[in-house]
Amino acid sequence: MKFASFIIDDIAHYGVVRGEVVHAVPSTVTREFPDLASAIAAQALPQVADAAVRDGAVYPIATLQFAPVIPKPGKIICVGLNYRAHGDETGRPDFPALFVRFADTQIGHGEDLQMSAESEMFDFEGELAVVIGKPGHQIGPEAALDHVAGYSCYNDATMRDWQRHSTQYTAGKNFPGTGAFGPFLVTADSVGDPTNLAIETRVDGVALQSASTADMLFSVTDIIAYVSRFTALSPGDVLVTGTPVGAGSGRKPPVFLRPGTVVEVEIARVGLLRNTVSAAR
Amino acid sequence: MKFASFIIDDIAHYGVVRGEVVHAVPSTVTREFPDLASAIAAQALPQVADAAVRDGAVYPIATLQFAPVIPKPGKIICVGLNYRAHGDETGRPDFPALFVRFADTQIGHGEDLQMSAESEMFDFEGELAVVIGKPGHQIGPEAALDHVAGYSCYNDATMRDWQRHSTQYTAGKNFPGTGAFGPFLVTADSVGDPTNLAIETRVDGVALQSASTADMLFSVTDIIAYVSRFTALSPGDVLVTGTPVGAGSGRKPPVFLRPGTVVEVEIARVGLLRNTVSAAR
Repeated sequence: MKFASFIIDDIAHYGVVRGEVVHAVPSTVTREFPDLASAIAAQALPQVADAAVRDGAVYPIATLQFAPVIPKPGKIICVGLNYRAHGDETGRPDFPALFVRFADTQIGHGEDLQMSAESEMFDFEGELAVVIGKPGHQIGPEAALDHVAGYSCYNDATMRDWQRHSTQYTAGKNFPGTGAFGPFLVTADSVGDPTNLAIETRVDGVALQSASTADMLFSVTDIIAYVSRFTALSPGDVLVTGTPVGAGSGRKPPVFLRPGTVVEVEIARVGLLRNTVSAAR
Repeated sequence: MKFASFIIDDIAHYGVVRGEVVHAVPSTVTREFPDLASAIAAQALPQVADAAVRDGAVYPIATLQFAPVIPKPGKIICVGLNYRAHGDETGRPDFPALFVRFADTQIGHGEDLQMSAESEMFDFEGELAVVIGKPGHQIGPEAALDHVAGYSCYNDATMRDWQRHSTQYTAGKNFPGTGAFGPFLVTADSVGDPTNLAIETRVDGVALQSASTADMLFSVTDIIAYVSRFTALSPGDVLVTGTPVGAGSGRKPPVFLRPGTVVEVEIARVGLLRNTVSAAR
């Protein structure tokens, strides 16, 4: 199953995707489950999808104004660089480097990635996003994937100069309009094994990051197990699992995003997230 | 004025402090302003206090079960080490190092600081907490203090080994029961100038951190101005302004917290936060 969060006339909706249309969840159901996260928390996605297909308004995906898949996650925990370079046989670090994004940095599929007058180094990072489905604290590796509701694409776009202001990434990762998340939640059963998905980031059509989740230093399982050793995970929480080599600031010469640049993050069986860069406001 | 958030029979309340008692905000008012953050957002603290003194139930402070001053801030943004050592004349870094705490790490005055079986290095960090009163983005230094609702004490307790797992502090700063916040919100007008407050952290009665906010590398004004360059601040958001030298892990020999240890953070005109350490659950 695939779900989308979207906006119609300034009102938040969500629905189930079938082919080229989305069936909006009807108001009889949204009274109980107002958003995708609450339906996930109740483990009610199948019933919600049935009700949407039966009673919901139908919209073509092509005309949809997408919201971030989960508009207001309780926690967005991101992993720094998490892929081995091609042919790199050096070991991985002992632990993943984790930072936090605030929910107000997020945008949906098709919304503008926002430059800032504060930064000359706006960079892209294509990543696999994991949406938590079941609450848990100290989740063992064997149970980790049972806690996943589904997957999506994420562009963890970064003000690279601000990321380097200090040892901590927080500032560079929390400008508004920099966390593109979508287009869909694809449920875990539809994706299957998350450890061998092709992931590619294209900038104006040119593939600049190209990898497989098989190259992750810390797998989805590793990340869930590690994170839940210190913090409880709740339905709707989002883990952004790190980016492959090839982001713009590490290239020679560096590639930074400019107004009008189109960035696509495509992950096999998960989807294609596309956003255009807008000038600083 | 001084305000407290507290729990009675598992129900969250808040109230205004007068002498040795708190006057709870009555239900006629909590319908409109259910918690301290919402009263701050409406700039309604004086009216709320009047209503509480007139109509609210009265409880002795000594018997109160405190909650964190702001139980669920939208953003808790913390500054790494932010005080110059006595006699240190070296310059400050260009930018503060910022990390994020999740709201579910917080505890109130008098609640237990929780050790974890995951860590042998539970450390204290006494800090001045700033509660935002007025929304703002890109707040200039001259206006920064106008955005402060008030101040409180914070013990930014840390699993020091986990903080050092990677370059990023996130893991070590987000164990449950580690962010002690209280006892009161003291309004900005009652505190006055925040740049010359004595701050002391005592462990079992022994002063291990002793400084003045005059020794901050980045002042409250600097922090508000810098943070709001990248993220919008909202009423109830909390800035935890960094700790003086003297935390346990940097001492020779190191001092770590053990079950039964009492940690006090006292800040002139702001209050005295006291918590006892409990064994890992």
